[in-house]
Amino acid sequence: MVRRATADRDTTVADRGADEQRTAVERKAFEEQVRGLLPAASHLSARRVRDLLRAALRGGEFGTGRLPGEAELMAQYRAPRDVVREALDLLRRDGLIERRRGLGTLTVRAEYVVPGALPPQDRALDEHLAVGAITPRLLHWAWAPAPRVIAEQLDDTAVGDDCLCVEYVLLADRRPMAVFTNYIRAPEAARVDQSGFRRDFYALLHSGGIDLTSCDVGVQAAGADEHTAALLHVLPGEPVLLVQQRIRDHTGRVVDYALGTCRNELLIEIGRIPRIDVTGAHRPKDPA
Amino acid sequence: MVRRATADRDTTVADRGADEQRTAVERKAFEEQVRGLLPAASHLSARRVRDLLRAALRGGEFGTGRLPGEAELMAQYRAPRDVVREALDLLRRDGLIERRRGLGTLTVRAEYVVPGALPPQDRALDEHLAVGAITPRLLHWAWAPAPRVIAEQLDDTAVGDDCLCVEYVLLADRRPMAVFTNYIRAPEAARVDQSGFRRDFYALLHSGGIDLTSCDVGVQAAGADEHTAALLHVLPGEPVLLVQQRIRDHTGRVVDYALGTCRNELLIEIGRIPRIDVTGAHRPKDPA
Repeated sequence: MVRRATADRDTTVADRGADEQRTAVERKAFEEQVRGLLPAASHLSARRVRDLLRAALRGGEFGTGRLPGEAELMAQYRAPRDVVREALDLLRRDGLIERRRGLGTLTVRAEYVVPGALPPQDRALDEHLAVGAITPRLLHWAWAPAPRVIAEQLDDTAVGDDCLCVEYVLLADRRPMAVFTNYIRAPEAARVDQSGFRRDFYALLHSGGIDLTSCDVGVQAAGADEHTAALLHVLPGEPVLLVQQRIRDHTGRVVDYALGTCRNELLIEIGRIPRIDVTGAHRPKDPA
Repeated sequence: MVRRATADRDTTVADRGADEQRTAVERKAFEEQVRGLLPAASHLSARRVRDLLRAALRGGEFGTGRLPGEAELMAQYRAPRDVVREALDLLRRDGLIERRRGLGTLTVRAEYVVPGALPPQDRALDEHLAVGAITPRLLHWAWAPAPRVIAEQLDDTAVGDDCLCVEYVLLADRRPMAVFTNYIRAPEAARVDQSGFRRDFYALLHSGGIDLTSCDVGVQAAGADEHTAALLHVLPGEPVLLVQQRIRDHTGRVVDYALGTCRNELLIEIGRIPRIDVTGAHRPKDPA
């Protein structure tokens, strides 16, 4: 599947003249590419300004909930009036702002930036996510034999080995934020099964004696199916964030595999991802 | 905004009897919660099986593109026929499979798992993403004064300082996968501006003498606006993945801030996220 342009690498001294000539040709092609922009440049500008405004909204730049007027936005973003207007219209269609006569432009949706890393030891999920008081609403709690896809994710688990499936909706101040289905491997799950689901899922894993050390996170956009929509109080088809998570203990073993769906108000942020090593970059199973 | 349940922590020896009684009450409430499931348990089972099948599809479990028959899926996922049928129907509505009379259930959409970390030094983006031959389609290349939101992201950059804006569509074998808008801070950008956009964006940054060391990634789901839809060859409103990225050099400084939108075929995977330190967890600016 992987094809690779090696032309840039195989340059020898004798090739340098040809290389410079090629650079000049490429530079020209590059300039033509810049000129031949599409779609219309003003639409692209509007997208860019919209994206910047969206980031500014998220960063709390308009703390009062009221955006600056068009003239100020034109100055701040060095954009003509039609571009600013289109950017605001795109934000409005995204459901992030409303424009009201006499009141100007107001933010109408709160967005939440939440960390994608595990909560630090001894910190409750409430404090980690900082979106309100967190409670789980339990949907399912049952032992089941692992199908192949789960056996391949959980370490030291064969197809048909029992694992504990725990499914819940994560509520923040009673608003649903996400639904997660966890598959916990047997030795730890047997201890978890003795605990009630009192506070949050990480506290539950901790009660099973699991020393959570790291996780792998995968993310993808999707449309909500009707059942997920009902659980998260959104409309069917509305964009949601799919999350898969492998939680590892201190030996690097995957002890919990989770498949989650988050409302699109949540921005999951993962800080300081180091440049990866070439060896075993995204293999799920290799221990630390 | 953060409220926190501290009840579990303040337990003293004298409280233990009361605590055990509370545990019994909670255990009962917990069991009632399990019984009082909603929506209908069979819909929840169908969601779970759909999610597992989706993960299996992504993991290449059905390499031939043909899914096992209903009877085999019933056995593998320990689910009754109506649950398996509903799970397959949900997958079909997600656009991932088709059911054809006489042919059975076939996969109809390829999904791509791509790493969210920076490509390792000396590895081309083609090889890093492994989704085909990567080429950028340039949309915009211009110097502009930084608005506040960019100045707050880029280190050592004040409002109004010039930065270089580079916008492009990432094509894999000519199929659009994502559109990214980058804001590169001035000293590095001046060197980048002397280079052509020959191969990929990371090679471009490298040509500007930037020693990329780590990045922060933020992700969120959204519906595609009409212009993004045109760029990515999807329908307006279709779910897409918004990505924001802060790229840091070896000193920990943010030298590039990118806002991107990815097609929902892409699953971005980030491996081995260590349990974070409590201090400065998700502040953008603190150096390493």
